[in-house]
Amino acid sequence: MKVPIITFLSDFGLEDWFVGAVHGAILEVCPEARVVDLTHAIPPGDVARASFVLEAAAPDFAPGTIHVAVVDPGVGTARRGLAARARGQCFVGPDNGVLDWALSDPAAEIRSLAERRFFREPVSRTFHGRDVFGPVAAHLASGATFDSLGPPVADPVRIARPAPRLEAGGIRGQVMGVDRFGNALTNVSAELIAGAFPGVPDTQLEIELCGRRLRGLSRSYGDSPVGSLVALIGSSGRLEVAQVSGHAASRLGAGTGDPVLITRAGSSA
Amino acid sequence: MKVPIITFLSDFGLEDWFVGAVHGAILEVCPEARVVDLTHAIPPGDVARASFVLEAAAPDFAPGTIHVAVVDPGVGTARRGLAARARGQCFVGPDNGVLDWALSDPAAEIRSLAERRFFREPVSRTFHGRDVFGPVAAHLASGATFDSLGPPVADPVRIARPAPRLEAGGIRGQVMGVDRFGNALTNVSAELIAGAFPGVPDTQLEIELCGRRLRGLSRSYGDSPVGSLVALIGSSGRLEVAQVSGHAASRLGAGTGDPVLITRAGSSA
Amino acid sequence: MKVPIITFLSDFGLEDWFVGAVHGAILEVCPEARVVDLTHAIPPGDVARASFVLEAAAPDFAPGTIHVAVVDPGVGTARRGLAARARGQCFVGPDNGVLDWALSDPAAEIRSLAERRFFREPVSRTFHGRDVFGPVAAHLASGATFDSLGPPVADPVRIARPAPRLEAGGIRGQVMGVDRFGNALTNVSAELIAGAFPGVPDTQLEIELCGRRLRGLSRSYGDSPVGSLVALIGSSGRLEVAQVSGHAASRLGAGTGDPVLITRAGSSA
Repeated sequence: MKVPIITFLSDFGLEDWFVGAVHGAILEVCPEARVVDLTHAIPPGDVARASFVLEAAAPDFAPGTIHVAVVDPGVGTARRGLAARARGQCFVGPDNGVLDWALSDPAAEIRSLAERRFFREPVSRTFHGRDVFGPVAAHLASGATFDSLGPPVADPVRIARPAPRLEAGGIRGQVMGVDRFGNALTNVSAELIAGAFPGVPDTQLEIELCGRRLRGLSRSYGDSPVGSLVALIGSSGRLEVAQVSGHAASRLGAGTGDPVLITRAGSSA
Repeated sequence: MKVPIITFLSDFGLEDWFVGAVHGAILEVCPEARVVDLTHAIPPGDVARASFVLEAAAPDFAPGTIHVAVVDPGVGTARRGLAARARGQCFVGPDNGVLDWALSDPAAEIRSLAERRFFREPVSRTFHGRDVFGPVAAHLASGATFDSLGPPVADPVRIARPAPRLEAGGIRGQVMGVDRFGNALTNVSAELIAGAFPGVPDTQLEIELCGRRLRGLSRSYGDSPVGSLVALIGSSGRLEVAQVSGHAASRLGAGTGDPVLITRAGSSA
Repeated sequence: MKVPIITFLSDFGLEDWFVGAVHGAILEVCPEARVVDLTHAIPPGDVARASFVLEAAAPDFAPGTIHVAVVDPGVGTARRGLAARARGQCFVGPDNGVLDWALSDPAAEIRSLAERRFFREPVSRTFHGRDVFGPVAAHLASGATFDSLGPPVADPVRIARPAPRLEAGGIRGQVMGVDRFGNALTNVSAELIAGAFPGVPDTQLEIELCGRRLRGLSRSYGDSPVGSLVALIGSSGRLEVAQVSGHAASRLGAGTGDPVLITRAGSSA
């Protein structure tokens, strides 16, 4: 039998019992599911950050994985709950943009969570992770069909996910977040770079972030002397800027939203 | 086969390996158990906080769930270990009041953990989560009978759990804790409010906390403008005070132990 | 069927999705494995701290447990990946000393992780926890033979793990770390003390740390008045210095590397 994997992402923190309560609600419906915590350290209500984390993390999981994302400042209001089937996986969460990466798949199927038989009763007005999203994911894991969750949705709430732009001479992207190691993670994929600079060796690229220009792409964090700033393709396939054995974001003063430019070295861009 | 659920609550933090060691000790006895972490961020030795969290969290779990609570400054002394069967669930922990909510059930059955065959040997003097409480819970999950754990206990250690009081004109409760979102969680249940103010609509209630009076009960966090202070019934069925997209406790200077008053608006209380 | 236990130790923190990604990579290969997190709060790149935690934690787990330790500043460079079979368990991680405790077993068998069929493809240059170490551990858990992982290794990277020394009159050890409760954990085992002071009762021992002399070994944290400093044998079988209901390391200004002396009270040492 296939063991269903349910990932869980939230802004609940680990100081209270909320994460455990959602695990319990999932296991009550689907005891054979394996619940994998992505992170619960999303700043309270930060839908954009959660959307970014889900986009970065979901491709690491196998087809058929079910992702639950609960950053839900509108819990208990008229906002809908959604499930999306996209990119070979399922996504469950509030209709506030947290699932934007799934919704951005042109082939995404989207349903409104309208079938109360998949909820945990009584449904509170303040904790839909426990009462709605977790149980719905667990029912999906237990074999409920996607189409049975509720009616199709044509107008889900989207959020602006900043896309890198091709400009004369290069690519303009931005920092999407800073990770535990101080690496500044950008939205510029390796594919985009390869397409924008056909035939240009990595060593000829120049990456500019916070006024600092870096030459070439490194292959790993440890190939340069300690303290060096390096640009490289990270584990999600996107450009990041790191400091060897240091904290690049602190060093550069870089944070979410800062622009990053990729050009060919010696060009006038 | 039913998959046993064991929850785990402690003051161990996540910086060391102690939480993992307890998981390992449980799985060694009962590999099919699912261990759900409630929180391990209880301040060291804060039995009252742990007791509150257990009271808030346990009702979220299914009948038959086994809860392990290890906040145990007296580990290795003569203090007993206890198991309690109450409210359809089982509770395992030190005899210091951490299980008070279970013990407060008039129908609770209580046993002293005297049967060393359920312990992990050798039993250390400083880590009974790993050596006693985790293994005992795992044996319960594996089918050991409750009565086999040890002799009945008639005099468990209790702690004062502050109860809300009915006063002339209203209810006097108190803040039991502040959650990650800054919500001030009180010990005043929705049932108590309904009983104290029969026929009074929610909109006629007045909630006073830290000198601030709030009118009416909101239905969710998101129904009022950003920055508003609202009172509402939270996901554990108790009154809480929140700030929409903010941190009510910081705003009000509210903390554990602060009194909260519920009256009928316009009354002289 | 035996349920395989895989422990997981890293410096990934819990703010990002990296820990979850490794869980997912393990479960994709071996869905029946149980992944137990030791801690992910190792300071970034602190191989020595991780090595200490692994040494302290591994004996808590059953024979056959597989431990994955990923503190890996050299990820993507020429450093090897290793698996070690030692002390009845298996260990997987980078060849940088993080597995030193396993390697210190004279009977340890060590293999280089050379067989790409056990990796997750494509293998990134920056996230071998997800792409190499997790999957290799999962293949071991699924029945891959240890010898199939790659060729034997005779020259693994070792790190200096400070060993306590017998001196005239006593034992000189050191603080290896401070735990969540402020206890200063040393590298002096109960066995070493017993061997160095044959026939000397615990009450005749004197423990010196940061200029403070403590008389005798306590049996638990709670046997002395609140605020007392006590020395005792902790749950890993080693000497530690604690403050009853307090934080000994802060009180004493003690930290990793500080010397601890054990002598017989009244001796001239």
